[in-house]
Amino acid sequence: MRSPLHQNQLTLILGLFQAAFLVTFALFGSYAPSALPSNGKDVEEATRMTNLYPLFQDTHVMIFIGFGFLMTFLKRYGFSAVSINMLLAVFTIQWGIIVRGMASAPHGFKFTISLEQLLTADFAAAVILISMGAMLGKLSPTQYVIMAFFETPVALIVEHICVHNLQINDVGGSIIVHAFGAYFGLACAKGFGKKEQRGHQNEGSTYHTDIFAMIGAIFLWIYWPSFNAAVAATDDARQRAVANTFLSLCACTMTTFLVSQAVDKHKRFDMVHIANSTLAGGVAIGTTANVVLEPFHAMIVGVIAGAVSVIGYKYITPFLSEKLGIHDTCGVNNLHGMPGLIAGFASIAFLFIYDESQYPAQYDKIYPGMARSEDGKRMFDEKTQALNQLMAIGLVFLASSVSGYITGLLLKLKIWDQVRDEEYYADGDYFETPGDYDFTSRIVTSVQKIEVAEYNPLSQKEV
Amino acid sequence: MRSPLHQNQLTLILGLFQAAFLVTFALFGSYAPSALPSNGKDVEEATRMTNLYPLFQDTHVMIFIGFGFLMTFLKRYGFSAVSINMLLAVFTIQWGIIVRGMASAPHGFKFTISLEQLLTADFAAAVILISMGAMLGKLSPTQYVIMAFFETPVALIVEHICVHNLQINDVGGSIIVHAFGAYFGLACAKGFGKKEQRGHQNEGSTYHTDIFAMIGAIFLWIYWPSFNAAVAATDDARQRAVANTFLSLCACTMTTFLVSQAVDKHKRFDMVHIANSTLAGGVAIGTTANVVLEPFHAMIVGVIAGAVSVIGYKYITPFLSEKLGIHDTCGVNNLHGMPGLIAGFASIAFLFIYDESQYPAQYDKIYPGMARSEDGKRMFDEKTQALNQLMAIGLVFLASSVSGYITGLLLKLKIWDQVRDEEYYADGDYFETPGDYDFTSRIVTSVQKIEVAEYNPLSQKEV
Amino acid sequence: MRSPLHQNQLTLILGLFQAAFLVTFALFGSYAPSALPSNGKDVEEATRMTNLYPLFQDTHVMIFIGFGFLMTFLKRYGFSAVSINMLLAVFTIQWGIIVRGMASAPHGFKFTISLEQLLTADFAAAVILISMGAMLGKLSPTQYVIMAFFETPVALIVEHICVHNLQINDVGGSIIVHAFGAYFGLACAKGFGKKEQRGHQNEGSTYHTDIFAMIGAIFLWIYWPSFNAAVAATDDARQRAVANTFLSLCACTMTTFLVSQAVDKHKRFDMVHIANSTLAGGVAIGTTANVVLEPFHAMIVGVIAGAVSVIGYKYITPFLSEKLGIHDTCGVNNLHGMPGLIAGFASIAFLFIYDESQYPAQYDKIYPGMARSEDGKRMFDEKTQALNQLMAIGLVFLASSVSGYITGLLLKLKIWDQVRDEEYYADGDYFETPGDYDFTSRIVTSVQKIEVAEYNPLSQKEV
Repeated sequence: MRSPLHQNQLTLILGLFQAAFLVTFALFGSYAPSALPSNGKDVEEATRMTNLYPLFQDTHVMIFIGFGFLMTFLKRYGFSAVSINMLLAVFTIQWGIIVRGMASAPHGFKFTISLEQLLTADFAAAVILISMGAMLGKLSPTQYVIMAFFETPVALIVEHICVHNLQINDVGGSIIVHAFGAYFGLACAKGFGKKEQRGHQNEGSTYHTDIFAMIGAIFLWIYWPSFNAAVAATDDARQRAVANTFLSLCACTMTTFLVSQAVDKHKRFDMVHIANSTLAGGVAIGTTANVVLEPFHAMIVGVIAGAVSVIGYKYITPFLSEKLGIHDTCGVNNLHGMPGLIAGFASIAFLFIYDESQYPAQYDKIYPGMARSEDGKRMFDEKTQALNQLMAIGLVFLASSVSGYITGLLLKLKIWDQVRDEEYYADGDYFETPGDYDFTSRIVTSVQKIEVAEYNPLSQKEV
Repeated sequence: MRSPLHQNQLTLILGLFQAAFLVTFALFGSYAPSALPSNGKDVEEATRMTNLYPLFQDTHVMIFIGFGFLMTFLKRYGFSAVSINMLLAVFTIQWGIIVRGMASAPHGFKFTISLEQLLTADFAAAVILISMGAMLGKLSPTQYVIMAFFETPVALIVEHICVHNLQINDVGGSIIVHAFGAYFGLACAKGFGKKEQRGHQNEGSTYHTDIFAMIGAIFLWIYWPSFNAAVAATDDARQRAVANTFLSLCACTMTTFLVSQAVDKHKRFDMVHIANSTLAGGVAIGTTANVVLEPFHAMIVGVIAGAVSVIGYKYITPFLSEKLGIHDTCGVNNLHGMPGLIAGFASIAFLFIYDESQYPAQYDKIYPGMARSEDGKRMFDEKTQALNQLMAIGLVFLASSVSGYITGLLLKLKIWDQVRDEEYYADGDYFETPGDYDFTSRIVTSVQKIEVAEYNPLSQKEV
Repeated sequence: MRSPLHQNQLTLILGLFQAAFLVTFALFGSYAPSALPSNGKDVEEATRMTNLYPLFQDTHVMIFIGFGFLMTFLKRYGFSAVSINMLLAVFTIQWGIIVRGMASAPHGFKFTISLEQLLTADFAAAVILISMGAMLGKLSPTQYVIMAFFETPVALIVEHICVHNLQINDVGGSIIVHAFGAYFGLACAKGFGKKEQRGHQNEGSTYHTDIFAMIGAIFLWIYWPSFNAAVAATDDARQRAVANTFLSLCACTMTTFLVSQAVDKHKRFDMVHIANSTLAGGVAIGTTANVVLEPFHAMIVGVIAGAVSVIGYKYITPFLSEKLGIHDTCGVNNLHGMPGLIAGFASIAFLFIYDESQYPAQYDKIYPGMARSEDGKRMFDEKTQALNQLMAIGLVFLASSVSGYITGLLLKLKIWDQVRDEEYYADGDYFETPGDYDFTSRIVTSVQKIEVAEYNPLSQKEV
């Protein structure tokens, strides 16, 4: 069905990229001292495997199991969801290490790798996998890889500006990871949009695929505290980030159940909300997980995020799709986009709610731009810092939208292998599928009982 | 179908509770010093994220993935199992932090939160989720929440008496968590029982839901050593708790396979035993995981627990249901109840099997009531301690049974939204379900092969 | 159907073995000092729970969830895959602790148990579970246990020779765990082979069982760095092992997608490759995960492993089955066998690529046989060490093949309960199965839509 050029396109592209990655790592990459043999190491280095590795592994589960299984809810797209998630993640991890490494290289392009780089590479993968959620089912494997190729450097450069130039605090990456990924994905969906992508018969779940999705959802939920705490500077900040995220998620989950039922005509829960909106509290507290000092502040953030997210799924996603032509398959706007913005604005509010004196000997670790020099002066005051946080939100929104939209247009080009209209949200063209694929994913029934007692060859006529 | 009052009941209840939680946390809750910024911290505080957090996260997986997926075995109740598990957990975590915090507050009601409180909140959630197992499929979401509301304070006050007044050792919570949850659940099932709940056509599993349940079962199995070790006082006690639990689980699992096959007419394994009884060894060693000094003692406990649990599923659960009207959906008596009692009685036995001198400088950390003052005297001797362990078992059994039974009667009141008789063990009334819900969950077949070659609209007549 | 003798065989065997294990642990087993109460402990002991436990738990997830779910891909063998995996693991853990403990006992047979022994027991379980993969669906539970009984001591004695006599470095066990398990399994399959095992109608997957398998695959993928790093000697070596494994897996996964598509006639991905070959990079870097100092070296190893593994599934597995009568159900030759050999040969290459001076104060921790005495002399030079690594590969290949083949012949004896020809790769004879078992696992369709509107008892004639 696909032309030979399109059929072999991915082989070529993956081959070229992997070769280029290898050469780049060979020429410019090396391990950091903490991962190399030495006889005298400082204590901090030595404890990295103890302090950081468990948090890294939790994040790793979120990327591969969490995102991967969360997207298996589509009835005919489970193979793609979990596999392409894996492919994009390993692509972005390598590409992200290169881009981030070279961008941060003190001189030249040499970059070093230690546990931190593996962790931040996982963060970079999260950006791309969030965008994948908006585009889920609409792209061929080639197009997904091309999307990741373009999105990664934009995301990392914007992150670099936010962290190094604007010196913002975004410990859980809600602005630079979640909001960026979401609005890139939405803009890409707009640029790439065709009416055949909307109201497609392959959209929707089956009973068991919704349960598969819950595997991803719950692992994301469980390990989100680790995601938000992993790069916090001090031990108490990490513990605070864990507790804030935990409490925000709890309050968010209660609210999700509440609102999910309240907005439904038949007062039934919607599994889309349970699997996604329960996580919004993790995003919304992400930017300030190391800042918030009062448990109930974290809970309020969670309540708001849960309510906004469910309302987003119920009203905003259909509106975006039908009125604005922005089809967001997984509703990433509701799980990552709006909660990411909430996180950003909360970071401004908390700058004024809390006060430097409440962070003895730590304020500058949270906000490096507000570090006091010996004479007590500092580069930024609270207002400047707040303005920077705001500018970061604006920059992320703008840069992700523009680059996402252009990427969407680019992916429309006929040079790329395109998914056939009838095969949106379906594995069949790209994966070998077992014999029950059609059956399992197309059943629509309301039966009391089916009982088939023995084998009878079913001729086509009789059926 | 449900009256508007009943339809909107959960919205109201969740809203009220979440608002009350927020206000209570705002007025009385704050973070503990270890989670707050400070410049001089003692070493123990600083290592909490390193020492405790991995064990906490393992426990967290058990609560949300473990309990949640273990209960997905019912063919038509997968959405509820995994979702209501999540709802009850986040409800109980917040409610439990409040109750436990206020009960332990040195003066007034102020309570503090750190990683320990998040961990013990997960333990409180376990109590309620075990009771949920006995009631699985019989309650509306509202009723589940009401059950958790009443059960949590009783469980935590009983725990407080056991730990602070009776000074018992129950490191893995087998008495105060597992036995309490199980017997509360059984008594609640008795109080709430109707004959329509027994022998219902919706009970039972499908091939794939049994596999979903194994996800929960195996994660519980894997992380049980962390559950039993998490609150042990010293590093060697934690390692011992891990090893004892690990060995008990291994011996228990071997025994489960053995007995499961032995008691079956056709000598086939029963997945209910594989998914549940294999875990009984974790419960049965829980109380004394930090006490047992000989590997084979832990293994003997595991062997006994596995055998008792399978025999419970095979003979005791049907007996309780048919003769005593106690319908125990998940068989929590066999996984948590009887193994919890075994753990309690084992704790008495091991008090006399081992001897103070075998625990140099540690006996008082395991049994604070037996701490020697400077003149060598101690509050309790072994016999008193044994009596206290016994009294704790009795108290837990009594308090859980009485409070559970009353809760069961209370849940029967028509003011609560009730599940319709034909919809016991089914998601349909409370969750939006995909088109294959009826089909997938009602197939009963014995076929050699089904082959449907192409689409033919099936008119009702022809079928 | 089975004779009473065969039906009760497993009960008897499990009973005897568990009793023997109990007696052996009682007579010879005790906890190591680090797990026993004491008032003065050295620092290294005290940090074991902090340093080693998270890596142990990751490995534990790999054994029980990873291997267990990876093997659920067969459409009618999910119960067996996940349950027998559990049974063999707990059998081997106990049996392995005994064998390894007695083999390493300084005098007599007394052995001690601490966290390390639990970890290495999990490694021993991995050997047997890999062999199980080759035999999957062909053995009765009794036969699996007998296989594990014979394989465990051979594997552990060969390991002992490799590590203590030949002093090889094989930090991730790619030679002594993966290659041994794979070639034992293949030889066993040869010895046990019958033509009815090949091209069986029960082989193959369904849509959802392939997704179940991905749960196992991804958890293996995520935690493989922990497996390869767990027993590395120093903190930097552990971090290096993590990073090398991580990068090798990433490059391997890219290559797997590339080659999977390239070799397919319709340019579609094969889920067998995605679930298995993506992991080959973890095996192939296993032996030298603590040795490799250049990131791109690890990536090259990953690329080679991924390519070899996919080509193995596509061409070598069918060849072995059809031409040589070696039926390898899970293709363990492609995931564990050949990548294990690659790991072995890579360990020889890296001995000459890197140089003693690059490992200050650490060379002897990686290669104890090359430790320098005070006068600068050493037992082995690089060539001897290389020869030893080569001899280890040869020994593992030979010992596993011979012992596996003999075990296969032994399992053929009619004294053991045998699987009926028509019930290969099927749960039905050994597990109670729910009503949809036949239906769910025998559907073959290509339909546009199935809609069944209401219940109609289907008489056999009408169907």
